[in-house]
Amino acid sequence: MAGELYRQPGLVTASLLVIGDEILSGRTKDKNIGYIAEYLDRIGIVLREVRVVPDDEAEIIAAVDALRVRTTYLFTTGGIGPTHDDITADCIAKALGVSIDVDPRALKLLSDHYAGRGLELTPARRRMARIPAGADLIENSISVAPGFMIGNVVVMAGVPAVMQVMLDAVTPRLRTGTPIRSASIDLDCPEGQIAELFAEHQKAHPAVSMGSYPTLRHGRPATQLVLRATDEHVLEQAVAGLRVRLSASGVM
Amino acid sequence: MAGELYRQPGLVTASLLVIGDEILSGRTKDKNIGYIAEYLDRIGIVLREVRVVPDDEAEIIAAVDALRVRTTYLFTTGGIGPTHDDITADCIAKALGVSIDVDPRALKLLSDHYAGRGLELTPARRRMARIPAGADLIENSISVAPGFMIGNVVVMAGVPAVMQVMLDAVTPRLRTGTPIRSASIDLDCPEGQIAELFAEHQKAHPAVSMGSYPTLRHGRPATQLVLRATDEHVLEQAVAGLRVRLSASGVM
Repeated sequence: MAGELYRQPGLVTASLLVIGDEILSGRTKDKNIGYIAEYLDRIGIVLREVRVVPDDEAEIIAAVDALRVRTTYLFTTGGIGPTHDDITADCIAKALGVSIDVDPRALKLLSDHYAGRGLELTPARRRMARIPAGADLIENSISVAPGFMIGNVVVMAGVPAVMQVMLDAVTPRLRTGTPIRSASIDLDCPEGQIAELFAEHQKAHPAVSMGSYPTLRHGRPATQLVLRATDEHVLEQAVAGLRVRLSASGVM
Repeated sequence: MAGELYRQPGLVTASLLVIGDEILSGRTKDKNIGYIAEYLDRIGIVLREVRVVPDDEAEIIAAVDALRVRTTYLFTTGGIGPTHDDITADCIAKALGVSIDVDPRALKLLSDHYAGRGLELTPARRRMARIPAGADLIENSISVAPGFMIGNVVVMAGVPAVMQVMLDAVTPRLRTGTPIRSASIDLDCPEGQIAELFAEHQKAHPAVSMGSYPTLRHGRPATQLVLRATDEHVLEQAVAGLRVRLSASGVM
């Protein structure tokens, strides 16, 4: 059903590319996917796919090539620091076929920042000013080294706190769509008990995307039904109708 | 650098496909990626890529086609329950070009389970016995409905507790490789301060994959350096040498 809702005309869509060996080794638990998913949902951008790839040029470029043409926007996190394993900016430039060099605007931000702290602007720190040609900078109010947006690709830091201020900073530049509204119903029964009526209800309301999510509540199987639609009225009708079916079947 | 270590001959690799609208909408925060990444790392299987896709047949099949040929194993989580949005088993069958029907072994597990609880084996619950032809079942000691392994594809539940018992159950059937050993050094300085020497050290030890991970410790920039290699002795030498460089530079 997901497909039907997600393929509505006029939806603004996104994909997310998480870059970093540390996520794939399990050493670092990703905190950005859930945050970005919720954030985009709130501003009416539908996240269609997430990929996590290592700090490997060929794999980053392949993922960027595949994702940037598939969705309205491609967001990336990770790999824009000063160390040798930070290769995201160069990979984005290669993928988009543009040159990359130290950007005067970014260099000024960094020089002022380090000068103000009596720190040296080492060649490594200058590396953080390397920005693909034609990109707009994304402000970083925490650690200064900027993210950037080039075409429909939004490149952000991997450190959650820094990624979050960059996401706030870039949002005003994004085209946002019709938010998808959702409602949920919690049941103390296993999914199997409501599956038939839920499937019938989905058939009766094709414009609403209906999902059933099993959980263990106090060790006992429980279910959350989630209904999602772009039209609030359509959603309300589907929820009301579902409550009637559920009461009739005795599960609520 | 990641690539160099990860492309060593003899490594057993994996990809992970997380299936579910609820992860992409942010409604559910994924807990499986980090758990599986750490688990595979521990048993010597290198996770190369993760994808998250919606409950959409075309997208699930496309991801399965792309990933199962790229790594030794493809693991999937989610979409094997009794409700209409649980389409993983059918998508796997289509992707692998095999038939799918109610499996007698799975049906017996479910019938016994529900009979024992005086619950009806509804058509929806029978759906959980639909297993692609030629698959081996993966035991589910929590909620009984089994996962399955077909070829190099391991299909597991999305509920973390259930996924975890399935992963334990399937592990003895997996070919495991040389575990990648890792060591880390925590520094109270920003990455920029050690980037040059760290890059030089990486060049001097190509068999070791070296990553630098910035964090904010008590609001101040800190750095964790992580070294990874399959050969313990090679790893120890690289760590010792790095400590010497770091002390010489005065950051530790």
